[in-house]
Amino acid sequence: MAQLLTNKEITPRNKDYSQWYNDIVLKAGLADYSAVRGCMIIKPYGYTIWEKMQQTLDKMFKDTGHVNAYFPLFIPKSFFSKEASHVEGFAKECAVVTHYRLKLDEQTKEIIVDEDAKLEEELIVRPTSETIIWNTYRSWIQSYRDLPLLINQWANVVRWEMRTRLFLRTAEFLWQEGHTAHATAEEAIEEAEKMLNVYADFAENTLAIPVIKGIKTPNERFAGAIETYCIEALMQDGKALQAGTSHFLGQNFAKAFDVKFANKNGELEYVWATSWGVSTRLMGALVMSHSDDLGLVLPPKIAPLQVVIVPIYKGIEEMEEIRQQIQGLINGLRQLNITVKFDDDDKQRPGWKFAQYEMQGVPVRIAVGKRDLQNNQIEVARRDTVSKQLVPLDTAIDYVKNLLEDIQKNLLNSAQKRLENNIHRVDTWEEFKDVLENKGGFIYAHWDGTSETELKIKEETKATIRCIPLNNPLEEGKCIYSGKPSKQRVLFARAY
Amino acid sequence: MAQLLTNKEITPRNKDYSQWYNDIVLKAGLADYSAVRGCMIIKPYGYTIWEKMQQTLDKMFKDTGHVNAYFPLFIPKSFFSKEASHVEGFAKECAVVTHYRLKLDEQTKEIIVDEDAKLEEELIVRPTSETIIWNTYRSWIQSYRDLPLLINQWANVVRWEMRTRLFLRTAEFLWQEGHTAHATAEEAIEEAEKMLNVYADFAENTLAIPVIKGIKTPNERFAGAIETYCIEALMQDGKALQAGTSHFLGQNFAKAFDVKFANKNGELEYVWATSWGVSTRLMGALVMSHSDDLGLVLPPKIAPLQVVIVPIYKGIEEMEEIRQQIQGLINGLRQLNITVKFDDDDKQRPGWKFAQYEMQGVPVRIAVGKRDLQNNQIEVARRDTVSKQLVPLDTAIDYVKNLLEDIQKNLLNSAQKRLENNIHRVDTWEEFKDVLENKGGFIYAHWDGTSETELKIKEETKATIRCIPLNNPLEEGKCIYSGKPSKQRVLFARAY
Repeated sequence: MAQLLTNKEITPRNKDYSQWYNDIVLKAGLADYSAVRGCMIIKPYGYTIWEKMQQTLDKMFKDTGHVNAYFPLFIPKSFFSKEASHVEGFAKECAVVTHYRLKLDEQTKEIIVDEDAKLEEELIVRPTSETIIWNTYRSWIQSYRDLPLLINQWANVVRWEMRTRLFLRTAEFLWQEGHTAHATAEEAIEEAEKMLNVYADFAENTLAIPVIKGIKTPNERFAGAIETYCIEALMQDGKALQAGTSHFLGQNFAKAFDVKFANKNGELEYVWATSWGVSTRLMGALVMSHSDDLGLVLPPKIAPLQVVIVPIYKGIEEMEEIRQQIQGLINGLRQLNITVKFDDDDKQRPGWKFAQYEMQGVPVRIAVGKRDLQNNQIEVARRDTVSKQLVPLDTAIDYVKNLLEDIQKNLLNSAQKRLENNIHRVDTWEEFKDVLENKGGFIYAHWDGTSETELKIKEETKATIRCIPLNNPLEEGKCIYSGKPSKQRVLFARAY
Repeated sequence: MAQLLTNKEITPRNKDYSQWYNDIVLKAGLADYSAVRGCMIIKPYGYTIWEKMQQTLDKMFKDTGHVNAYFPLFIPKSFFSKEASHVEGFAKECAVVTHYRLKLDEQTKEIIVDEDAKLEEELIVRPTSETIIWNTYRSWIQSYRDLPLLINQWANVVRWEMRTRLFLRTAEFLWQEGHTAHATAEEAIEEAEKMLNVYADFAENTLAIPVIKGIKTPNERFAGAIETYCIEALMQDGKALQAGTSHFLGQNFAKAFDVKFANKNGELEYVWATSWGVSTRLMGALVMSHSDDLGLVLPPKIAPLQVVIVPIYKGIEEMEEIRQQIQGLINGLRQLNITVKFDDDDKQRPGWKFAQYEMQGVPVRIAVGKRDLQNNQIEVARRDTVSKQLVPLDTAIDYVKNLLEDIQKNLLNSAQKRLENNIHRVDTWEEFKDVLENKGGFIYAHWDGTSETELKIKEETKATIRCIPLNNPLEEGKCIYSGKPSKQRVLFARAY
């Protein structure tokens, strides 16, 4: 069996995990490098997965009362400076537009920037839209009747990262950003928590990625937030990945942009805010959660193609016979809204097709030849466990339908077990370093609550506090690093 | 009746057409001005209409074999310069990114651009993506087996326009851009024409906007195209609006970016290209095609809300009684996938609600009171003709369903008649100027075929050649302006 579980185009995980990831992203056709530093191209197959994520999330946002809108790509530099910690957080990675025209250099005959077309005020390509949106909300919100304002935006954003990786960290990425406005702190906190739950639900029930819900330490908070909620996932190599964040922004942006509302008593108050987002980074999480050395593994709910049928035939006539005989199966599956492809490409051999669909993570592959049909059966292979089964044609529709559900569940269960087995309760600094080096995963350990200790641990080990889990039990203890008193354990990990 | 057909918040068309347009866009909640020069905010109601346009178009693109992908926002300046006429066309309106970091000025304590973070090569915010995409296609296309490549992208683009108008001309806008690659010129031309037909079909059958299909004169062609196909619509004020374009690009971009494929004989050839796009400009066309002095008028197929039910009641109890009694109607309509809202807002009076829904262009408004229900009837008002009818409750589901279809047809027919009545066949220069000043619309007149004449006519009258209609009959004649021989009439108009 072992030789079946590798694909020569993909570096095995145990050889070079990072190269394995890149191989899958490139060779399954998810993304490609571009000629622009740090920017990637999302290829059609990868974009189709992103579209499915968008559709599912968008419905979840709308079902919870949100509407979409669109705000400008550019943010005037001065807006950016209005919320002090916000600008501090983003200033170092801003793409800045300074001119609005090119011209032909009469001497060199080259196209150059026209210095006469310098902007009076520089524009920042949005790294996130709190400032431009809250500047707008000032004119949209007058009274408590205008609240809550529950708006989401699907957009591209730019953060000038120095070290980039396809999907995980790119200068430009696609995301959604929710920006809501509320009359009370309680309502805003409730919203931030509600959206965290939407993200967790989506990660687990659509992407089959189990997550830990928690809050960030002050050090790891979003620039401008009072509280940052997050969902953290665990990748196969034992590193954590922040899969989504939801922020309670307090009145910080309302104060920076002077957004007040008249309450029921006619008194003016500052508005309370949240923001929340997930991005194309989820594509990276998806790859690294489920895939293997044969290529991508996709949960059926997010797979562009759920079932592929590969005919095994000699001569086009035989292929057409096979097609005819299983047309009922194809139609039956499509009636259940299952996406099915009959691969009639005569230029490629079945073996090549099998490897290709394994690489692309198609959840169910059906192989069917003339002899199979004489025996009234088909061969059904599931991508998650790479195993196959002969199935009577008469019951195949039900079998495949159930199999898809089973694959979805199995992927979540496997990932759930991996997560549970990789939360290590650790009580000494030696053990902390040992687990980090040799096992990876989350380390659940005591911390004295200071940023100082947190930063020292990061410096020495590259591990950060991923989150303080929600409903974390209080427990007296000693900080793993400083030995000072601690009231609770927190989750450390090295992270993407 | 006359007084019913105005709304005091909206400037009447005959008083100030341009202000009427702005009033509707702002007050129906379609868009808002932003703090960034020339950039607009698409508000939730407007964005929902755009989403419906996207969904319909996206399905049409996929049904014709296209897939979506995503390419970088930024284009290196050098790419831009590779196709000579392309850079000439766009150089004057480019937003240019020159730096990638901000910093705190230690002296003034202000946030400034960090001069140490200057890019080696400036990046252009894409005004259109031919160059970055064709640079990518070089590595995606090797053989005829890789063709055709049929890719579309939904994205934001930036063109630094000096005079902007909400939706019609903004510095940043949303659009889709198709970029296809083909083995032969014939196939590429067929693709460009196919997508023109998709656009025309969408404009007429979804937006209820009749269009004229044609080709642009060399002067009005897309920068880098061999042939530009377009659909032209006529607005209520007699001005034309280009609603979509589809370009046959020949081998221009393949040559500029060295994109070759091995044909069946193994010989290398340059690839043939098309590109095609429609944008949020269509929102402007939609407003100006159907709306009136009461506000927006929307074709049912694109309306976020198709039917609103306004209860006429005294006291919440009576409202709940009404709700109960028409729940069957609501459910029945929803089963037909018709979007229905029962407006139970107790803070506003029915009259205010009526005006509001008229402003927002909701196609069908149902008013229902206790007495109506005793008589087993409801009052159904249609937005397009601003007329109403008492309808038996028992047959209301069918009535409303048919009414929505009728409104969709009626809007197209009215616009079609307006278009037909406003194509003026003109044979003298005096008449040309007279029609342009006093009637507007399209002028179908002879032209000598030179750019010189075309530009002189534009200078003197602001009218441009909108297109040479497809299948235009040849006809000997004299140029309206120069008197020189002409072989066919073309369509002139002033345009948005």
